[in-house]
Formats: sequence, structure tokens, C-alpha cells
Amino acid sequence: MDYTKILNKINKEVKPYFGKGKVASYIPALANVDPNKFGISIQCIDGKEYHLGDSHEPFSIQSISKVFTLADVFYQIGSKLWTRVGREPSSNQFNSLIELEIDNGIPRNPFINAGALVITDMICEQQVGPKLHILNYIRKLCHNPNIEYNEEVAESEAQNGFRNAALANFLKSCDNLKQPIDQVLDTYFKQCSIEMSCADLSHACLFLANNGKTLNDTREILSFRQTKKVNSLMMICGLYNEVGNFAWRVGLPGKSGVGGGIVAVVPGKLVITVWAPELNQNGNSFVGIKALELFTTLTKRSIF
Amino acid sequence: MDYTKILNKINKEVKPYFGKGKVASYIPALANVDPNKFGISIQCIDGKEYHLGDSHEPFSIQSISKVFTLADVFYQIGSKLWTRVGREPSSNQFNSLIELEIDNGIPRNPFINAGALVITDMICEQQVGPKLHILNYIRKLCHNPNIEYNEEVAESEAQNGFRNAALANFLKSCDNLKQPIDQVLDTYFKQCSIEMSCADLSHACLFLANNGKTLNDTREILSFRQTKKVNSLMMICGLYNEVGNFAWRVGLPGKSGVGGGIVAVVPGKLVITVWAPELNQNGNSFVGIKALELFTTLTKRSIF
Amino acid sequence: MDYTKILNKINKEVKPYFGKGKVASYIPALANVDPNKFGISIQCIDGKEYHLGDSHEPFSIQSISKVFTLADVFYQIGSKLWTRVGREPSSNQFNSLIELEIDNGIPRNPFINAGALVITDMICEQQVGPKLHILNYIRKLCHNPNIEYNEEVAESEAQNGFRNAALANFLKSCDNLKQPIDQVLDTYFKQCSIEMSCADLSHACLFLANNGKTLNDTREILSFRQTKKVNSLMMICGLYNEVGNFAWRVGLPGKSGVGGGIVAVVPGKLVITVWAPELNQNGNSFVGIKALELFTTLTKRSIF
Amino acid sequence: MDYTKILNKINKEVKPYFGKGKVASYIPALANVDPNKFGISIQCIDGKEYHLGDSHEPFSIQSISKVFTLADVFYQIGSKLWTRVGREPSSNQFNSLIELEIDNGIPRNPFINAGALVITDMICEQQVGPKLHILNYIRKLCHNPNIEYNEEVAESEAQNGFRNAALANFLKSCDNLKQPIDQVLDTYFKQCSIEMSCADLSHACLFLANNGKTLNDTREILSFRQTKKVNSLMMICGLYNEVGNFAWRVGLPGKSGVGGGIVAVVPGKLVITVWAPELNQNGNSFVGIKALELFTTLTKRSIF
Repeated sequence: MDYTKILNKINKEVKPYFGKGKVASYIPALANVDPNKFGISIQCIDGKEYHLGDSHEPFSIQSISKVFTLADVFYQIGSKLWTRVGREPSSNQFNSLIELEIDNGIPRNPFINAGALVITDMICEQQVGPKLHILNYIRKLCHNPNIEYNEEVAESEAQNGFRNAALANFLKSCDNLKQPIDQVLDTYFKQCSIEMSCADLSHACLFLANNGKTLNDTREILSFRQTKKVNSLMMICGLYNEVGNFAWRVGLPGKSGVGGGIVAVVPGKLVITVWAPELNQNGNSFVGIKALELFTTLTKRSIF
Repeated sequence: MDYTKILNKINKEVKPYFGKGKVASYIPALANVDPNKFGISIQCIDGKEYHLGDSHEPFSIQSISKVFTLADVFYQIGSKLWTRVGREPSSNQFNSLIELEIDNGIPRNPFINAGALVITDMICEQQVGPKLHILNYIRKLCHNPNIEYNEEVAESEAQNGFRNAALANFLKSCDNLKQPIDQVLDTYFKQCSIEMSCADLSHACLFLANNGKTLNDTREILSFRQTKKVNSLMMICGLYNEVGNFAWRVGLPGKSGVGGGIVAVVPGKLVITVWAPELNQNGNSFVGIKALELFTTLTKRSIF
Repeated sequence: MDYTKILNKINKEVKPYFGKGKVASYIPALANVDPNKFGISIQCIDGKEYHLGDSHEPFSIQSISKVFTLADVFYQIGSKLWTRVGREPSSNQFNSLIELEIDNGIPRNPFINAGALVITDMICEQQVGPKLHILNYIRKLCHNPNIEYNEEVAESEAQNGFRNAALANFLKSCDNLKQPIDQVLDTYFKQCSIEMSCADLSHACLFLANNGKTLNDTREILSFRQTKKVNSLMMICGLYNEVGNFAWRVGLPGKSGVGGGIVAVVPGKLVITVWAPELNQNGNSFVGIKALELFTTLTKRSIF
Repeated sequence: MDYTKILNKINKEVKPYFGKGKVASYIPALANVDPNKFGISIQCIDGKEYHLGDSHEPFSIQSISKVFTLADVFYQIGSKLWTRVGREPSSNQFNSLIELEIDNGIPRNPFINAGALVITDMICEQQVGPKLHILNYIRKLCHNPNIEYNEEVAESEAQNGFRNAALANFLKSCDNLKQPIDQVLDTYFKQCSIEMSCADLSHACLFLANNGKTLNDTREILSFRQTKKVNSLMMICGLYNEVGNFAWRVGLPGKSGVGGGIVAVVPGKLVITVWAPELNQNGNSFVGIKALELFTTLTKRSIF
């Protein structure tokens, strides 16, 4: 399938949807992003690529980084990971402490902040230099050695990170954070500040559509079964408390970030990444969801 | 693909899993079911069928009936249905009132009891004889005119139905139940008491794998897009508060009932129904989930 | 102490507080009450009485009736009552199901609706004619044989009583309602519809200020210790989710009703009843709380 | 009234209640306390004192310190304090984050940990040396210049204080903590580590029974009205999620600490402090509550 026409069609049809969401404003570095940015990149498992708009401009990947840290830890330590994190959807906000307290410090899933902090803690346990480790892991995945943290964003996050610090301290009080809180938070804020383009993200996530393998080599990022399971998690928990709506409208496993990016996977076919900074009230890209909805409607590529 | 060998393999491998769950005991008619019953039926969209064990013995479909009433109402009244019911997962038990009160009487989704009562209420609004209507709808779907309510089960449910009556009264207090409570509850208890075999259920649900169409005619049960959306709902909400676990282990849209049945859909391919009465702590068939996990593992038919 | 001047002072000072609350509107019989009604009656244990304004006009006592049914049951069956109802404050609305579900059907206290329904159920268990029994109990307490149910109010409550029916059904599902739901609800709606004046209520509740005894005879309504305990319950749970505010501003055990009445007790001294139909957002009399606050400020009769 | 006989009677009657609770074990300094310690001190407003057992041995006052910091701040800044803290009971544990999140960072009352942290933050805002300030405030109240922090306890609390750090960070994220988190936590852990005897505590709290004044001078600690209000708060919120039980059994305003101390106030009469280290499941002194129950039963000094 040639996706060029489809991307052009999407480009036209999403126009009226700009101006209806709000760019994340909790830190200056995000608040100052041009709300009209819009990019899409498709990476197919046969190697073909399709790009539209600002698809090569790096943006703050934020929570999309949780996919990478999860994949890394899951491959390293396997199923015992799930003694410390659940796999069920959360019905609270992504940074809520309510369910965490009810569940005695076991985060509902690895994509809410509490769960992601536990995953990052596991990386800190295993790696001498966890921050560089994460960066290198992602660089390799997308074959782009220039991927970097945005120090200013990480610094801003840290200065405003009281809610995440509350989560980390709560986890620690339940003995579900093993490394020093400051180290885990520092690593977490750094991973969220990583900047990647739509193209980078589609390259990096291709293994999720390709049975766990990268495109140009036979390197295994996840096993065949692990890949399916990570996709299932993205489907069930990838868009915070809007997973039902995303499954309904788009019908693909996906992961969003407050930078306005969404990565979605068509298993066995392709990865598509959208970037549009304006967010809806759930913290997901307003135009991004619309673009992905158009994509599966036009291509009939929903997994359902 | 010839599924005969696979069914035989599953049959062997599930043996050690019997005796670990508990048959539903809240009404005698369910409590007295033989816990060792086990059946599987696969219905493919090319017309092929595969059956194993007690696949032609009728059992109480219970909550699986919610798929049929939802499909019926969704096709009749379309998207305005969603002003009265949500499409997000619930993190409480299937019969909980907590989220319903927090959400001011809008059930989180149509597969928890509160949501199913609203759907049944809509049928009661539209149909003169809602109970016969539902029966005929299902009979037609599975080409089996002998499908019947089990009056004894319905009667038992009604006598022990205080929790559902609490839900119905709460919905009514929020003006989200339009017909008389007694009528809605009576219809609901009847629909849950319907008895079908694995074969019946796989026949009846084939439209979910077949773009909304039945097998042997061109009759549209749901539109192409509606079909995908109902599948997405089953994925996100079909197994109560175990949707993450089911997506993780099985990777298919599915709907379970406390009678021990689970229907799962491989979009574009087939429907598979399992029956094993012993339930896990979440009220889903213990052996049934294992059997379906084996099915997608052996066939690689997970949608992820 | 001569309370005449104090009542006159209160009368003057509450004037600016009218028009700021809202008369209960969920049933016509309450919605049509003149919002400017205002009465106070003080009954002292030495027999002196003080009255102001509309103090002899009957109004709907609503939840104040819960004090009478509790006292009756507590005296009859004693402490075993507390196996079915708690004695802690509720932090949800008076008609909430959330805590009831969390606590497996044991209401947090006897003054929220769920708890009052259990108390009424106990009366229905013990008495052949529970409705007449309650009426006679209250008539005797206030030496007024003309106290009656308002059938129209009871009927309206029943027709709009879905929320209470939800509570009753939930309690039944937890086996914490023994008599038929319809009987308990009918009795409950009737008790809430009873009409009494401020004078009647101060007479009837005098035993709470008088160590459990009525004024003119030596009849024991509650034992000395039971009386203190019921007062403590009113302090901790008598004004729904405004108990802290009431303790802070008024500093007396009290019980309110959506008819706009509040009964407050100065142990060892007197009972004071206020009636002003406009309610604040918590369902308590807006002017009534102000009047009682003035009373304890001017008389220094707070128990603290 | 001569309380000597009554104290002796209590001493005899509480014997069988030892060994049924558990000494606080979350830090070694508390875990090593002798569980059989038992002391009572009564300080009357007429200057008489009564002491029993280990009434002059200092112990860790823990949450009882919250009464002192509240009184101090309330007298300094008055009612505007209540824009940052509520006055209603909490139905969660004393260190819960659930209600705090639901209420957007406004603690339910000043006696749960979150509320106490806000009060301590206010002291940190006002005072150059908040820790010394608190110490001096208490020293003056009880006329004992030897009152000290226990540095070891404070250090242990700090090392295990992740839950309080979670609360502080959450408050900060809601902008309801103005000073640096570390300073507020350090001050809070210090105030909780203060050691006082029953006699010290009864001396120090006498103003609560004496209309806001200390015994031997005319110094005003709180105004007449403020005193009543602080007593009302202790009644409604002083024993965590056991306030109903304490009101029921004891019938006095009180404040407990996990060191095993409880201070209770008979307004206009006396203050009674009990110390017995074994705690019930709610974190309140098991024997202490029994002793106070006996006290009000034998003296009829309940406020109800």
C-alpha cells in the first residue's frame, strides 16, 4: 500500500482540528512549542517510509520513553518484572496516587507515572550509568547517534516534579523503589526529556510491528511473544484514562506523551508516529488522535 | 489452517488446570453444573467449523448476552447510545456501584452490569416484547430456533438479584433508566439465563469476525466500522477487571460469562468459544482463559 | 438563664442570612414551603420553655426522625445493634453508596440513609405495625397525640425514592436488611414524612439533655450511659459531611433534616430546635446553623 | 472531686488489657519502649494535680505535638489558616494520600499528617528558627525548660519518612507548602520526637480546659472562642479514623500519638493524660482508651 495519498488526505482533513486543544504548559520549555507543528512518519517492516510535515523535527518524547524503558527491562529480567508492576488499566489520572495507595504501592501498569518510575528504578539497579544506558538503547533502536536529552526540559521537570517526587516517595515507603529516590527521579526526568522526531520514533519502535526485530539486522529487541505482550499493554494502558476512546476511534496499540507525540503500531505491518502539540483534556494530542483515526479509517488497518 | 490438531493439543494441555477454580455458586442452577465440562467450538468465516468435547451442550451464557444486546441497540440507534454509557475500562468489580456514583449514573462501559442494564433499558424502550425480541435476535444469529431462556435460572437470578436491583434503582435515580425498573430487571435476568452451546455462540458471534455480516447470507448485523468498534470494546472491557491479563495472555477481543463461557474473536478469521465452568477470582473461566492462551500461542493468531 | 432576650437577639441577627440557601426541591411538598419560615423552641430540663416565630408550626422532620428510631432500637436491643451499623463519621454524601460498598454493606453510622434504613429494618423485625409504633413512640415523647405522617410527602418520597431503594437493595444483597425491602422503605418514607413543630421536637428530644428521662415522669427512654452515647453520635455524625463545621461553629450535638429543622442538645441543660427551610450545599439549614452558632456564642453553652 | 481513688480504681481495672495491643514498630526507638509502661496525670484548673504510675517519665509525644503547633499558628494568624486546611473528619488512615488528592491538596483537618505538615509549614514561614520556636512554646506551656527533642527518634523518623515525604511533595505540587520541603519535614520530624511526661502534657494542655489561659498567670494561649474551637476539632478529628469510637466510649475531646499517649480535655475542669505504649489497629493506645473510658464512666465527666 502506498501511503502518500493517505497522508495527504489526513493532512487536509485535520486542518479544522487545530486550535481546539492546549499545549502542555506546566514547564516553559513545553509551553513555548509552536502549536501548529504537525508531522507524521510511517515506517513499514518492508523498509518503506512515508513522511509528512514536521516529521523530521525533534520534539520532547515524554511518556513515549516509557515504551523503551519497559522493553529494555522486560527483555533483561523477563516476567519477574510483574511482581512489582501490574498490567491492568488505570481509571485515574496518569500521576494519581489514589490507586497506588489502594494497591499498596504496586502501580496498576508500567505506563502510568508510578509504574514507569518502578521500571526506571529497575534500570538504575542494573546499570552503572542508567541515563547514558537509556540514551544508547534508544540511539541504537533508531540508528540515530544524535538523540540527546534536553537538559533544560529535564531541569524544568525536576524543579516542578513534586508530584513525581510524591509518587517516588510513596513507592519507596512501600519498598517498591530500590535505588535512591533522587537517582530514580533524575533518570526519569532525563528519559522524559529526550527529543526525537516522528521519523526517529517510527524507526525506533519498528520492532513492535516486526515481531521484536529491528529492520536491517536480525537483532532481537524483544522475543516474538514479548512483543505481542508489550503491544497488548499499549492497547490496554497506553493512553492513560482514554484507552477506550483510542481503541474505539483508532483501534491500534499506541503510546502518547504530553509533548504531543503518539506512536501507534500495526502489528506485522508498520509503525506510525504523529506529532501535534495541542493536547485534549486527557493529556493526549488532540489532532494526533484525529490523524490516527483517519489513518485506520482510510486504510482499514485497525487491528479489530 | 486445520485446527483439529490444535484443539487436541489444547485438550491435553489444559487437563492439569481443572479443579483450581470454583463454579459460580450464587444460584443453585449454576452451582450444580458439572465442573469438568469442557468444550471448544471454532467457526471460521470460510464456513469451516471445529469442535471439541462438550461443544454442543447448552450452558448459561450470562454476561455473554451483553454482546448481543449491545450489537442490537448499536445497530438500531447508532452513536447516540454513547450519551448514556461510556467506553472506558472499569477498575471495579462488574457489579460495583462506586464508579457509577462517581460518574453520576453513566456506566463506565456496556459490559459491566450497570452498562448492560442501560442497554437492556434501550431495548425495552424500542420493543413491545423485549424478551422475545432478544431471543429471536439471537436465534437468527446462530440459525438455531431452539435457543431458549432457562426460566429456573432467571427466577433464581431475580430472587437473588438485589445487587442488580441496587444498580437499576441507582440508574433510575440518575434518570438513566427510562422504562420501569421491574421490566428492565426481568428482561435482563432473562437474557442472562439464555442457554447456548459453544457451537451456538461461535455461530452467533461470527459477524464480529466477518465485518458485521453473517456467514450464509449478506445480512448486515453491524456495519464494517461498528464491528471494529464492538471488538475494541470487548478488548478494553470484555473481561471485567481482568482485561489487561486477558489481552496479555490471549491477545484477542473477548467476552466472558459466569456460566464459564468465553467468546473470543480473531477479526477477519474466526470466532472461538470455550466453555469450562470453574471460575477464577475475577469471575472468568479459569480453564477457558488457559485454553484461549494456548490457542493464540499455538496458532500465533493474537491480534498483536 | 432567661433565653427570651437571646432569642430576640438571634432573630434580629439572622435576618441577613435569609435568601442565601435553597429550599429542598426534590419533591413538590417540600419545594412549596415558604422559605422565610423561622422558628426556635428551647425546652429546659427544669421545665421552662422559650419560643420564637413559627415555633409551633409543624414541618417535615425528615432525617431528624433517625434520632427517634435509633433511640427506640438502642433501648430495645442494646449494643448488639452495632454489629450491623458503625459509629464513625462518613465523608460521603448522606445517600452515598460508595462507603457502603467499601465496607461490605455495614453503614458507617445510623444517621446516613443506609444506616437509618438498617435501624428501620430492626424496628420492622420487632414490631407488628412498625409505622404506628414509630408514630406512637414519638407522640408519647412529645406528649402530643396529634403528630401524624404526611401521606402526600411519604408518597412523593416513595415515587422519587430510587436512591434509597438502591441503598436498601444493596443492604439486602449484603444480608444487612432482614425484612422485605418494600416494607422497610415504606416505613422509612413514612417516618421521614412526620410533621412536628420546633416545640414538639424540643419536647420530644428533652430526654437527650436529661440523662435519658422525660420531663414530667420518671420514664426512662435511654439509660444514662446510652444517652451520652447517642449524643456523641449526633456530634460525630449528625450533620452529614458537615459535622466538623457544625462542631466548630455551634459546638453541640445536633441532628438536621432536609425540611430545614435542626435539633441540638446542651447535655444537662436543654434542647433547642431551629427551623428555617433554606438549605446550604450540604443539605443543612443555612439560617438554622447561623442561629445555633449565635445561641452558643451568646450563651457560652457550647460543650467545648 | 478527689481523683485519687478513681485513678487507683482505673489502675486495677486496666490490668487485663495489657498485652493486647502492639507497640509502634516502624522505628527502633519506639519499638524498644517497655510495653508495660502506664501513667496518668490529671491537672485541674484549680491547680490540683493527680498522678499515677509512670506519669513523670518522658515519652515520645508524636502526633500530640500537632495540638501545640495548631494552637500556636491559630493564635498567630487566626481564621485565614482555614483556607489551607479543612476541619472535617477524615475517613482514611492518618497518612493517606487519597483524600488529599481528591481534595486537591487541601488536607481534611490539621490532625492528619498532611494537615499537620501544612501547619508546620506555616510556622516555618513565620519563624526564623522554627524548631527552637516550637520547643520554647511547649516549654513555656508546661513550665518545664528541660523539654527536648529526641534527636535519635527524629533521625529515625527522617530515615523512614518516605510516606510523609510523599505527602509533603504532594502538598508542594498543589502549592500548599510554601517553605522548602526539607525544612518542613525536618521541623515536623523534630516536633514529633519531643519527649514529655503525662504530667508535662497535662500541664501544657491545661489552657484547653481553662478558656485559653494557663494556670498560674493570665497569659492567653488562645482566646475563649478559639479554645472551644480547638476542642471541637480534637473531638471531630483527634483520634484518626476512630473518632466515633472515642467519642462513644470516652466522650471527651482528645489527641493521641503513636508513642502511646492520649491527652483528653474536660472543658472548664481539667486535662487528663494517659500513657500506655501498646497501640490498637488504629494506632491509638489500647490501654489508654480503656483508662479514659473508665475515667468518664466513673466520674461522669463526659461532655455528653
